[in-house]
Amino acid sequence: MEHYIPRPVLAHIEDSQDAYAKKLIDFLKIPSISTLPAYSGDVRRAAEWLLKEAERLGFKGALYETPGHPVMYAGLCPYKDAPTLLVYGHYDVQPPDPVDQWCTPPFTPVIRDGNIFARGATDDKGQLLTFFNAIESILAMEGKPPLNIKIVMEGEEEIGSPNFMSFASGHRELLNADVAALSDGSKYRDDMPMICYGLRGLLYMQIDVYGPSHDVHSGLYGGAVANPAMALSWILGGLKDARGKVLIPGFYDSVHDIEPWEREEMAGLPFDEEAEKARLGVDALVPEEGYTVLESTRARPTLDINGIWGGFQGEGSKTIIPAQAGAKVSMRLVPDQDPGEIARLFERYVMSLAPCGVKVKVSTISSTGALIVPRDSVAIKAAERAIEEGFGRRPVFMRDGGSIGAVIALKAVGIDDILMLGWGDPGDQLHSPNEHFSLENFRRGTIAAASLIYGLAGIK
Amino acid sequence: MEHYIPRPVLAHIEDSQDAYAKKLIDFLKIPSISTLPAYSGDVRRAAEWLLKEAERLGFKGALYETPGHPVMYAGLCPYKDAPTLLVYGHYDVQPPDPVDQWCTPPFTPVIRDGNIFARGATDDKGQLLTFFNAIESILAMEGKPPLNIKIVMEGEEEIGSPNFMSFASGHRELLNADVAALSDGSKYRDDMPMICYGLRGLLYMQIDVYGPSHDVHSGLYGGAVANPAMALSWILGGLKDARGKVLIPGFYDSVHDIEPWEREEMAGLPFDEEAEKARLGVDALVPEEGYTVLESTRARPTLDINGIWGGFQGEGSKTIIPAQAGAKVSMRLVPDQDPGEIARLFERYVMSLAPCGVKVKVSTISSTGALIVPRDSVAIKAAERAIEEGFGRRPVFMRDGGSIGAVIALKAVGIDDILMLGWGDPGDQLHSPNEHFSLENFRRGTIAAASLIYGLAGIK
Repeated sequence: MEHYIPRPVLAHIEDSQDAYAKKLIDFLKIPSISTLPAYSGDVRRAAEWLLKEAERLGFKGALYETPGHPVMYAGLCPYKDAPTLLVYGHYDVQPPDPVDQWCTPPFTPVIRDGNIFARGATDDKGQLLTFFNAIESILAMEGKPPLNIKIVMEGEEEIGSPNFMSFASGHRELLNADVAALSDGSKYRDDMPMICYGLRGLLYMQIDVYGPSHDVHSGLYGGAVANPAMALSWILGGLKDARGKVLIPGFYDSVHDIEPWEREEMAGLPFDEEAEKARLGVDALVPEEGYTVLESTRARPTLDINGIWGGFQGEGSKTIIPAQAGAKVSMRLVPDQDPGEIARLFERYVMSLAPCGVKVKVSTISSTGALIVPRDSVAIKAAERAIEEGFGRRPVFMRDGGSIGAVIALKAVGIDDILMLGWGDPGDQLHSPNEHFSLENFRRGTIAAASLIYGLAGIK
Repeated sequence: MEHYIPRPVLAHIEDSQDAYAKKLIDFLKIPSISTLPAYSGDVRRAAEWLLKEAERLGFKGALYETPGHPVMYAGLCPYKDAPTLLVYGHYDVQPPDPVDQWCTPPFTPVIRDGNIFARGATDDKGQLLTFFNAIESILAMEGKPPLNIKIVMEGEEEIGSPNFMSFASGHRELLNADVAALSDGSKYRDDMPMICYGLRGLLYMQIDVYGPSHDVHSGLYGGAVANPAMALSWILGGLKDARGKVLIPGFYDSVHDIEPWEREEMAGLPFDEEAEKARLGVDALVPEEGYTVLESTRARPTLDINGIWGGFQGEGSKTIIPAQAGAKVSMRLVPDQDPGEIARLFERYVMSLAPCGVKVKVSTISSTGALIVPRDSVAIKAAERAIEEGFGRRPVFMRDGGSIGAVIALKAVGIDDILMLGWGDPGDQLHSPNEHFSLENFRRGTIAAASLIYGLAGIK
């Protein structure tokens, strides 16, 4: 196997594992929970921690204020003609609850059996630090990087990156780069590293249904006053059928069916349906008719109710026709589905399902397009070899069913080659109690990151 | 007009209005919300308050324990051969939510524009106290009642009287009476007092739908994991159609259609649809196809969703497939529909609507049959005249769309003549924010109650 990384850099990485782990432990102690206002000071502290790290390595940077949490940017760009790599990551974390299900406290990092346990260990603090580690070892041995490096770290990824798009479009020059890279996901299987080349989009809507101006007695009015919860059920029940097909007219019009080569490639990947069912606690998986589970969750659009409410939710009984009912409904979109157009189709269809006697309001809460990145770029080739150098195995390619607003923002500022990597294992429990990241993946990810930096140096 | 009430008693009632209002305010301060376990101490406190009141008047009584809230019974039965009147009422109230829609706090009674505002003002604390007031004035002026009086007050009417039936059947001797009377409803119109001769039954069910064992990421699993909120929407949406017909197979099998004379009588009552729509804040009323609004709400069975929940209900977005969703669904039944049989039909049908990939649980929360009482009894004649004495106008007859489990229990212990009266106005907002009861109805109701006591004294 060809090596990108100079031997002394590789040796420095290996020798620095204890120091790098200590640094990660220090970082993980900061409870940077972006969704809870009480922690906003800690979120800022995490941004400052990262800025200090970058400055220690010789980067120049600053925190950029947003209406929410700050964006940390730092650059080390000594060359005029060399390629520029933009490293993206996020320093915010999910809330740790249910806290009582953690074996050790979520913000007291502990190493057990080769894993470091803490909220944010794999998502994304441990993974983003692999790039800092790689840069530190490169600079320690060679004094300068082989290409220009920019680092942008946001503090609102876990709440849907509400401010990153406008930050990015307001700082196009700052973020300008040939390639962007992020490691904020996981391998396909512990022993199968993966490059993600596609994301689904997300269109998140709210439906509010209004009936009588106040809750009214179902004995006195039941039978003659339209019930908003019933109207909502008719509307929601009409959005999708039991075959998994979304019933909004026009929803599939711009959807390209999955290519035969892509279906074949997905079919070639191992997928243990029984294990998945056991892990989810369900009797059956229900993919869209005509598609496999992997196709349905990664490359097909779908619709889900994320929340529903109305009327009496307590114990026992309350005999009312509720004044109001509502639901959060989100759609995962695939490339060529325009979120704005789908939002219009959604609203028109919901209105057409509304029965007499109620008022219906439809609002868009957030909207992110889908994305496919080119698979045949030189950047992807470099990433494949970097992963092989770090993890000893060439990656598989897969699309992800989720949506990463920041990636869409990077695409929108003009970066076409976006490397969506993931050094974690699928069982790392991200967003769940006992989140962890293996020290082995931390080490291998650092090698892969260093390898990628050298590999990308030659692409221009 | 013939007077039943001796002049001194009438004068005492008129002179005691301030004192009676103060007593009501005192009673309304107790938040006796029967459905919320946190308030069970307050519910008991309301029972004790009533018992103390009855004992102060010379009654002998006690609280009778049940598996739920206690029943308060007190009797003043000095005669061997006189008729016995049983007064029924309930001292529990509905939850006050949504609390933020109250102009003044629900358990801080306030008099505004001749109305007393508080949860329970009209349903049923203000109305039941009219009998206490009447008895107090009678005893103050005459030293003894004109007939035997028994008072039974329960604390679980608002949760469907789950224990009153077994209490009643276990205390037949205690409750034995010639006539039962209750005032727990409203006039037909502010200026049209009413005697209710029929009630709908109530079957209150809960549907719980279970999906994955924990909330899962809708990006990772959307498209292949069955969504409990969607399953619930399909189930609920299938229970009733837009014409107002309940779709449960067999639901209408034992329903007798409304008699032509009864349809004619109802058609003869004034009904201002525009005013009703304005009061409810709706654009349209939606009676069952083939029936008027009055028929649909008073003499036809129907089905309503009283509450619905699942997943994320906060502001903004959370991208999950919820682990669980549920709903409260209740049906109003008419005579000859057996609640137990309808519960079986409901459960069977709900299960048939459940899609693959979720588990569905159906539970009965409460169940009460429907009732029609004789309209030509001497007790009814006495009630007609008492209402004329209190309210200055003879009552109309009407069936009520609501359900009073206790009435069914009284019927079951052998009391055929049950006088279902109602001193409230239709706009009293019972079960809604800003519930109130007018002091004028409180006064007139007290006179009518006293008149009824004297009128019934001669029926044996």
